[in-house]
Amino acid sequence: MTDMQDQHIASAYDRDLEAIQALIMKMGGLVEDAITNAARALETRDDEMAEAVRRGDAAVDRLEEQINEEVARVIALRAPTARDLRVVLSVLKISSNLERIGDYAKNLAKRASVLTQMQPVGDSASTLRRMAQQVRAMLKDALDAYVQRDEALALDVRDRDVEVDQMYNNIFRAFITHMMEDPRNITACMHLHFIAKNTERMGDHVTSIADQVVYLTTGSMPDESRQKKDRTPFETHGAVR
Amino acid sequence: MTDMQDQHIASAYDRDLEAIQALIMKMGGLVEDAITNAARALETRDDEMAEAVRRGDAAVDRLEEQINEEVARVIALRAPTARDLRVVLSVLKISSNLERIGDYAKNLAKRASVLTQMQPVGDSASTLRRMAQQVRAMLKDALDAYVQRDEALALDVRDRDVEVDQMYNNIFRAFITHMMEDPRNITACMHLHFIAKNTERMGDHVTSIADQVVYLTTGSMPDESRQKKDRTPFETHGAVR
Repeated sequence: MTDMQDQHIASAYDRDLEAIQALIMKMGGLVEDAITNAARALETRDDEMAEAVRRGDAAVDRLEEQINEEVARVIALRAPTARDLRVVLSVLKISSNLERIGDYAKNLAKRASVLTQMQPVGDSASTLRRMAQQVRAMLKDALDAYVQRDEALALDVRDRDVEVDQMYNNIFRAFITHMMEDPRNITACMHLHFIAKNTERMGDHVTSIADQVVYLTTGSMPDESRQKKDRTPFETHGAVR
Repeated sequence: MTDMQDQHIASAYDRDLEAIQALIMKMGGLVEDAITNAARALETRDDEMAEAVRRGDAAVDRLEEQINEEVARVIALRAPTARDLRVVLSVLKISSNLERIGDYAKNLAKRASVLTQMQPVGDSASTLRRMAQQVRAMLKDALDAYVQRDEALALDVRDRDVEVDQMYNNIFRAFITHMMEDPRNITACMHLHFIAKNTERMGDHVTSIADQVVYLTTGSMPDESRQKKDRTPFETHGAVR
């Protein structure tokens, strides 16, 4: 094959990758908004906003399908080298993480609608909104780190997830207290607790996007001892994973 | 390329696929045992068995990594056609589903250890064990359906997941009652409720393995209206997804 053909194929492959990356960023933007709007709907008890988030998740799912098809097309068409293949396959993992985060945001919106029918439990809705905003900011940075192949930013995202875990542990204890104090809070607390746990899980998925960035930039996953599932201490009354 | 070379490459590719499929089945076997043993540890309050399940999850994670590497190697080496590629990429999705199910089983085992330090809550542990056994049986059938490309069996697995969702809704209501009746049950019920929810989520991941089988046999995913996330009715006091 001549250099010119070689270059031609290489640049066509790069254009394919950029097109797929653009789909990832589009998907990421939709998911970021879903997190923010679902948490706001919970805090302001806005059933219409919650309904809009629930309807919006279908677009996120369609984008994941589109990305999967593009990836299969590019692999079949360009037969990438092992190194290029790593980049393409990381796209599949990231789009799958984004789809899961979108599902959790949709679930948060559904529970927000349920909770409009119940008494508010202390200031838990605004605490949960702050927790969701932290996760949304981490997601934005994880996607920026992906586009810029910025390992330092990816590692920073990983570290910030520890704060999300701490927020979850604190709110878990608060819910137990609310339920003990007044059994009429129990059903609402069950839903609020799921929102807290699912928001903490969104943080885990953001962390695995950051892990992919570290993998792409360094060629290996972050040190096992730093990896999410092994790092979180086991607590009798706190987060258990 | 001569037919002989062609055949040679085709059969080498088939051998690669069979090797990867063997890894999937090995991973599936470990995950099936983890589900059974974690649920048994919960029912018999057996901390040692729970600890063994927790330690065992690392082997499941290593198998997923190995499968990912094998898939990348095969794609780079054999440059499969679009049709063959569909089979290879489905392996990535299935191994990722198995890894998640393994994580949930590990989480179940961790909570089982926590719960040995608390009063049992009614007969919930044996109800949860039955729920886990249903999911384990579905997983076994989903993997058999994958190996035999058995669409009918895959669709049967999807249908049985509805029963798991019903089990979850029933136990959710039971926990609310237990907590209302005696606030000393609240902390234990929070953990038991997570076990129920995570077991229901295991069923969702088994269902998406079944979806992959349908995709491989029919060329398209199951009818949207039958897909898990759209099929489950929204309930104020039941499963919300």
